[in-house]
Amino acid sequence: MKLLEERIKSEGRIYPGNILKVDSFLNHQIDVGLLDKMADEFYDCYKDKEITKILTIEASGIAVACSVARKLGVPVVFAKKSKSLNLGNDLYVSRVSSYTYDKEYDAIVSRRFLGPDDKVLLIDDFLAIGNAMKGLVEICSQAGASIAGIGVCIEKAFQHGGDDLRKMGFEVISLAVIESMSEDGTIVFRE
Amino acid sequence: MKLLEERIKSEGRIYPGNILKVDSFLNHQIDVGLLDKMADEFYDCYKDKEITKILTIEASGIAVACSVARKLGVPVVFAKKSKSLNLGNDLYVSRVSSYTYDKEYDAIVSRRFLGPDDKVLLIDDFLAIGNAMKGLVEICSQAGASIAGIGVCIEKAFQHGGDDLRKMGFEVISLAVIESMSEDGTIVFRE
Repeated sequence: MKLLEERIKSEGRIYPGNILKVDSFLNHQIDVGLLDKMADEFYDCYKDKEITKILTIEASGIAVACSVARKLGVPVVFAKKSKSLNLGNDLYVSRVSSYTYDKEYDAIVSRRFLGPDDKVLLIDDFLAIGNAMKGLVEICSQAGASIAGIGVCIEKAFQHGGDDLRKMGFEVISLAVIESMSEDGTIVFRE
Repeated sequence: MKLLEERIKSEGRIYPGNILKVDSFLNHQIDVGLLDKMADEFYDCYKDKEITKILTIEASGIAVACSVARKLGVPVVFAKKSKSLNLGNDLYVSRVSSYTYDKEYDAIVSRRFLGPDDKVLLIDDFLAIGNAMKGLVEICSQAGASIAGIGVCIEKAFQHGGDDLRKMGFEVISLAVIESMSEDGTIVFRE
């Protein structure tokens, strides 16, 4: 998606440790108009797939998930991040290692909001190592829900989470795929 | 807002400690259609106030803030919750005590996204004791930004955060104001 690539090039900032900050329009300040244009792309891919629910994870996945959900006419469920060991038994739980923050948390979803009748579109803002997304896949598996596909705004291909998920058999739609980037500001997108 | 009150009555669950769970439509599963109807109400109140930015706090404020921002045509900024003591100096920081979770965190916003030229609408899903909202007020004060008003979906009036903010001189628009509730399921709304 050219518009997104241009925004990444003009406003993205690269930090040591493969960190790409796009906090001026995606995950701290949010350009809702851009979100809606991204949601149009996901809608075009998934409008005929009988999606019943969007699943994402807090916090920065929520905004784009809601834009997609509006177009598809389905609810969003967002997984919560919990460090508590004292969780109820009415939850799906998947342990996630965060590469960016070098810590672990449980991604949790109430059993009331996901089940075997659901056909789920997984949405997130970023896909890098893919641990958070694999946690959402695991939660769908626990729920017996089917996964229609995975949609992410920005995939950092050189961290291979997208490859892993495609090898697992999932369709992954990424609106901007970064093949490489370096701290001098160079960003190479996949054609 | 009758529609919201009806949803709270039919789907809300009350737990010890003045906890009202509305996670089937507002802050775990999200009914985006309802969000947009709530956003219409905030839009009607603030459409002529020359708002430049919506400020909210992760995670569950993000969804409703984005719906309001879409109608007003302005960006959302969401404050992040951080427990880190090692924050950069390019941030506004306000310490917040969470009543619900009995812990403290810093609400942080990058200085790049809020300044003296901003006229801010503060949005959140819940207002109880009001500590998170007072943290957002403090951040606006640090930024020199003016506050046009405060909009919340559900105000628990018996916890007096709304009273405090009104005494501070702010206009607080709450779409459903709960005067009292009890664990047998009784909820009394303000007329």
